[in-house]
Order: sequence, then C-alpha cells, then structure tokens
Amino acid sequence: MTGTGIGLDRHLLGLKDISDSEIVSILDRAAYWEQQPEKVHRTLAGNFVANMFFENSTRTRFSFEVAEKRLGAEVLNFTAAVSSVQKGESIYDTVRTLESMGIDAGVIRLKPIGVLPELAAKIRVPLINAGDGNNEHPTQALLDLYTMRKHFGSVRGLTVSIIGDILHSRVARSNLWGLTKLGAKVQFCAPPNMRAPELDAPYVSIDEALKADVVMMLRVQLERHTTGLISSAEEYRAQYGLTEERAAKLAPHAIIMHPAPVNRNVEIDDALVEHEKSRIFTQMANGVPIRMAVVERALR
Amino acid sequence: MTGTGIGLDRHLLGLKDISDSEIVSILDRAAYWEQQPEKVHRTLAGNFVANMFFENSTRTRFSFEVAEKRLGAEVLNFTAAVSSVQKGESIYDTVRTLESMGIDAGVIRLKPIGVLPELAAKIRVPLINAGDGNNEHPTQALLDLYTMRKHFGSVRGLTVSIIGDILHSRVARSNLWGLTKLGAKVQFCAPPNMRAPELDAPYVSIDEALKADVVMMLRVQLERHTTGLISSAEEYRAQYGLTEERAAKLAPHAIIMHPAPVNRNVEIDDALVEHEKSRIFTQMANGVPIRMAVVERALR
Amino acid sequence: MTGTGIGLDRHLLGLKDISDSEIVSILDRAAYWEQQPEKVHRTLAGNFVANMFFENSTRTRFSFEVAEKRLGAEVLNFTAAVSSVQKGESIYDTVRTLESMGIDAGVIRLKPIGVLPELAAKIRVPLINAGDGNNEHPTQALLDLYTMRKHFGSVRGLTVSIIGDILHSRVARSNLWGLTKLGAKVQFCAPPNMRAPELDAPYVSIDEALKADVVMMLRVQLERHTTGLISSAEEYRAQYGLTEERAAKLAPHAIIMHPAPVNRNVEIDDALVEHEKSRIFTQMANGVPIRMAVVERALR
Repeated sequence: MTGTGIGLDRHLLGLKDISDSEIVSILDRAAYWEQQPEKVHRTLAGNFVANMFFENSTRTRFSFEVAEKRLGAEVLNFTAAVSSVQKGESIYDTVRTLESMGIDAGVIRLKPIGVLPELAAKIRVPLINAGDGNNEHPTQALLDLYTMRKHFGSVRGLTVSIIGDILHSRVARSNLWGLTKLGAKVQFCAPPNMRAPELDAPYVSIDEALKADVVMMLRVQLERHTTGLISSAEEYRAQYGLTEERAAKLAPHAIIMHPAPVNRNVEIDDALVEHEKSRIFTQMANGVPIRMAVVERALR
Repeated sequence: MTGTGIGLDRHLLGLKDISDSEIVSILDRAAYWEQQPEKVHRTLAGNFVANMFFENSTRTRFSFEVAEKRLGAEVLNFTAAVSSVQKGESIYDTVRTLESMGIDAGVIRLKPIGVLPELAAKIRVPLINAGDGNNEHPTQALLDLYTMRKHFGSVRGLTVSIIGDILHSRVARSNLWGLTKLGAKVQFCAPPNMRAPELDAPYVSIDEALKADVVMMLRVQLERHTTGLISSAEEYRAQYGLTEERAAKLAPHAIIMHPAPVNRNVEIDDALVEHEKSRIFTQMANGVPIRMAVVERALR
Repeated sequence: MTGTGIGLDRHLLGLKDISDSEIVSILDRAAYWEQQPEKVHRTLAGNFVANMFFENSTRTRFSFEVAEKRLGAEVLNFTAAVSSVQKGESIYDTVRTLESMGIDAGVIRLKPIGVLPELAAKIRVPLINAGDGNNEHPTQALLDLYTMRKHFGSVRGLTVSIIGDILHSRVARSNLWGLTKLGAKVQFCAPPNMRAPELDAPYVSIDEALKADVVMMLRVQLERHTTGLISSAEEYRAQYGLTEERAAKLAPHAIIMHPAPVNRNVEIDDALVEHEKSRIFTQMANGVPIRMAVVERALR
C-alpha cells in the first residue's frame, strides 16, 4: 500500500540535490510571475495545496499561502499547535492522512532532520520543504538568489559572506549549495561554537567578511548557546553584529540581507533594517513569486 | 428571539435517530461525488460553512474543509484553542454568534455530551456533528459503512467486530447504530473496564472477534484508565491488540479498519497499518465524499 | 525605505479623528450591503486582506472574515498564538512583512496602546483597527450606531447610557466619540474604580441610566479589579447589572445592547440576552455589512 514515491523533480527537498539549470529555471519562472500585472490567476484552479507546519512560522506560511492563492489553488493550513500531533500522531501518519484526503501538493516544515527524504519516498504527492531542522530551507535560498540576481544582474562571481550561527542554520546550508552551483563564492563568519566544520566554505574574520558583495546576517538565538563563548546579546553584537559603524565600511555596491525575523540591535542594528543597502523586505517580497514558481513546478 | 429550530432532516446529530433509507441515500450520494472527475464544483457557491471545533482534530477538520471547498462553499474555521471560549463564552453563544453573522451551516465538534441536541433545537442553521464527547461521530460511521459497502458490495449480513475502548468511543456507538440499521451484526471485544453495558451488542473474546468479516480496532487512551485492569501498552497489545500473529488468523476476505489516529504497536501493529487487508487510509479517502454528501444535504 | 504613509481617509484607526459625514457614509454603505440579495460579490476580487490578530477574538475575526469573503477578497488569517511573535518579532516587523508580501489591506487587533498610529504612519497599506488596547474599537461602535439608527430612524437626540467598566473599555470610547459626532447624548454609569475621568461624559446613577433610549451594558472582567470596591460577580450584578427587575423599568421604546461576549448573570441577566428589547445578536448581524463597508472603503 505504501507509495512508491514520485520523481525527485517534483519534490523540492533542498538545493543540495538539484541541478543549476533547475535552479535557474525556477528563478526565471519567478521573474515571469513577478511581472504579471494581475494578482490572481487560474493556473492551479481545482488543486488543493496543504501547508503543513509542524513548526510555527508566520512569515513562511503566509508567503506560501499568498503564492498558492495567487495561482488559484485551494489552500489548507495545518499547524502542529492546533493538531492531533498532540495526541501522538506521527508526522508520517498526518501527511499520509492529508494525502488520502486528496491534496495535490504539500508544503512542509518540521523539526526533525532526516525525516523529509523518508517521507518523500513514501508519499505520492509532491512535497516542498519549508524548512527542516537545520538541514535545508530551499525556498529561502531561492529567494535570496533571486534577490541577488536581480540586484547584480548575475550571481556568478559574487562573493557572499554569511555571518552568524552557521551551525544551526538551514538558511546557510541551502544558500551555500545554491550559491555555489550558480558560481558565487561563499564564505562564513562565526564564533567558534557556531561553526559547522562539515560544510565546504572558508571562515573569515568579520572585517574580511564585510568586503563581500553580499553580507547576509543570520538570526542568532543565544539561548541555544548557554555554554558558548559569547554570553550576551551585547557581546555578540560587538563581535559579530552588523553595526552602523561596520555597515559604513561596506562597498558602495554591496547589499545587506537577512532571512528574518531580525533581532534588532543584536545581529543587525535597528537603523540598518530599512537602510538603503538593506534588501530584507525586498527578500520577503521576492519570496512570493519564488514560491509561485516552486508550487507550480510541483504540480506541473 | 430564540430560534424554533429546523427539521431534524437537515441537521446530522447522529445515526441513532435517522432512518436506514436516509443513511443509504447519503452513501449513494457519496458514491456520486467519488465518481466525479472534476475536483471543485459550484454546488454550494455563495454558502458559508463554519467548522467549529471546540475540541481539536486535524483529520476531521481537514476532511470537512476539503469536502466543503470541493462543493464550492466559503469556509470559516474556528478552533477553541484560539477562541474567546477562553474568555468564558459559552458554546451556545459562540454558535449563535456565528449564526448571526450569516453562516449557512455549521460543523461542530465538542466535548460535553447532551449539548448538541439542545443547540440544534435553538439554532436555525443546520448543524453537523463532527464528534460530541463519547456520544456519536456520525460522519465517521458513515464513511466506515461506505468503506464496507464498497468492499463487500453490501453491509447486510456482515459481522463486524469492534475492539477496544467501547466505553469512551463515539465511533463504536455511531457504528453500532448505523450498522444495525443496515442489517449487519455488531459484536464488541473489550476489557471489562472499557465496556458500555447499556449498548445492545454482545461481547466476545478476542479469538472470536477475529473471525468477523470486519475487524475494527479503536484507538485506546490508556491514560483514561489509570485504575483499570490493564496498566501498560504492552499488556493491552498482548491481550487486545491486533498483532501480526492475530492478523494472520483473519479470514481471507476480512478487512481491518481503524478510525485513526492509530497508536502503532498498541492497538494495532505497525506493519498492519498499511497491510493489504487494511482500509485505514481508504477510510480517510472515503471521508471526503461522505462529508460532501452530508454538507450538501444540510444545505439542500 | 520606510513608507511615508497613506492618507488617513483610507485607514480606520478610530472614530475620534474622523468626521461625522465619513461615519454617515459608512453607515449608508453598510445599509446598501445589507440589502443585497446575493451573498458573495466580486467587488474586491484579486485583493488580499490580512486579519492580523495579536490578541485573540473569535467574534471580531469571524465577522471581518465573512465581510471580506462576501466582497470576494482573498483572506489571510494570522493570530499571535500561532505566530513568530513568540520568537520576539515585533508587531511592526510582522506588519511590514505581510505588506512586503503584497497584502492590500490589513485588519489589526493589538494590546499595546499608541502603537497603531505609529504603524499607520509607516505602512503603505490601509489598516483597520479591530481593537487596540482600551483605546478604540471603531467597527464595534459603527455597528452599534448602525443598530441604533436602524431601530430609531436616527441617532440624533438619543440618550445612550453606557454601563460598566468604562476605564478599560475601547467600546465605550469609540461609542462616545461616534455617538457625540452624530448628535446623541452619552452618559456613563460605573463604580468609582471603573471610571475614566478624562472622557467627556457625565456619570449617572443606575436608576438614571435606565431612563435612556439605549442601555448599553459592557462586559466586566472582575479579575482586573482585585483591589476595587466590588469584589464579586453577585455584588456587581446587584449594583450595576441589568437584572430582570431593572429591565422591567426600561422605557417601552428602549433597547438593550452589549458588545459581547456577555457574562450571563453578571452584567446582564441570562433571560435578557435574547429578550425582545435586546439587540445583542442583531448587533453581531449588523457587524458584517459594517465591516464590508469599512474594508471596501480601505481599498477603494
């Protein structure tokens, strides 16, 4: 009875395992959607898309919901906080249940790492990863790539500094893999206890990191690092935060990015969030056409 | 000002008080909906249906929502966890409020027993019971009947064993009443402390129960039975669980059912959930056309 | 990058700062919507409206959602309980995020007072106040005005008694400002510790209050007044509650109102909630066309 799975080309589990041409085709399709003057289309009319969030996220769920509704799909929302996961139902059983009820695609966010590929192998409907543990967050990286390509014309040849808690960041991982495939150079900057030695990118000092074309700050959750070297938000800001002083040293053409939500005055100064170099809210705007392209791809 | 109520023929409060021909007409209409090639229809366009869940349920709410959207209705969701029921508002006041706002039908799940008939007598919009305490869960039993009829051609003459916590089960009650009306024979199998002596069906041993045409396992919630005879999941499984060994003894034509969510390796072994005899995910799939038929009936 | 804001004439932050003719035009448009025989229209097709509830409210959110869907808008719901506000994201960042994603209007309820005007100055999409702290709840007052105008033909010249916890009531404030602009006379009745001395209306005794054309009871939350003069629901009912005895003294043409949810047998007796003089559920019904008019105005 178990599904035999569908081709990897309809799921979107991560950027590590898809080709550069697949990525480019998603970016191109997002550009198409961004240019459409009408907001709502009939492209996916009659299709049911379920947003299954086993971990809360206002921003990502909203972005997918807007994308799905702009494509004319029927949208169903599920968050673990109000679900029978509380009654001990497993993630697999929940997803299989929704599949049985006739959904055509599922957007899924979950905490445990490694569950998603197993799920995708057993489920017949395409699944889109909206963040799985600290593994991947492919649509975030796609909208980041899109934002860079739009600003610089091309991603190839850019130097991108990703600064912060690399160890726990699915955003860093998906960006590393996506950016590398498209020909950018990625470098990390992080305190020793926030590094991920298995990832193939060099660590640089904060001063070196600021010379890049793109400075991408990550949200830091200090409560995860009680035994770490950095014990306070002030200390983190002083050593790794994008302060106004540091921002003044950025190259004239450089841009500031952040996957949000931001900790104002911790990893980024309040005054920089809507600075002229900041693309933070532009990233969010770009998330909608990217997710339209991704959801459409799942159901093509 | 209080509503004088509408005819019982538009509410669906339970299977105890509706006729066998009503049940058959719902099953027939579900078969019609299951055969439709298009997913979304305009049947209930312009109608507002509220799913009012005073008790959480992912599966049931989703199933109703898919059904309502396939019929073209406007859907409003309410769960108690995010509602002003927290502020002490009574269930009646909430339902009257939604009625005042112009909903055309309400799907309702609630914990207290006996409240639903009172509500239905005072409310002018048709109400569909999505589970009330341990009293009834009529759409679950209807989808169970539908699943059996589809597999065996007819429900008449079947022997159905319902195994588990009969005492707390609205599924057992609705199935007993629905199956009996359609000419099936129902027998229960349960530990002494999980029996409901007021229900008109014989209790049989687990070995006898396995000889039936349909073996319906119920979800057991051991935390409800702290003073009972069975104190652990292992002991429950050993005495009343559908283990692989027991499943091997089932008749060749027999099927396994469960209202879900399952406790894997408690009332049913993990390997049996998607066994070829299992209809568990088929039951969920059948829930959608059943609920389309029921919601359509409420608004005809 | 910060928005320069839009004209006050598209936001609806409160009734204190809009003109009497604006109020009348909203009431007139609500009357238009109430008379339409079709439930769902295409007026706002292709527009996205976000209901952003940083404070829970079943009734108000539902009422807005019905209104928005009747206008044909795409609706997105957000409640703080299931949001990344938990992760420390500020209200401003959340609203800016949703704006970036392309919403066309936002309905917002929030606890902190004074945040809303700041937000409205920085956000480019029109915002509708669905209740901010104890400051304003303009759509509630508009539906109250609508209910009075419908019953009496005109609001001008009416005497309206608002009875209860004036201090904590946004409903009292919005009604005071709206009623005064339309030529009604407002008087308050409250225990000393529930009075708001900065508001420009006289306090009268309960006996005097009962002589008015409209007796509007407010929900009392005794837990807010632990150090007050009134320590129990019984005592509150005895001194300030609308009991059946008191209701018998009302003028023949007088009506009873309450913004709901009611505390039955505290500020109002159970038997009065659906009394022939009560307009409580009528108020809720009127909320839908009022909110249609307000949402339409925001997006005109």
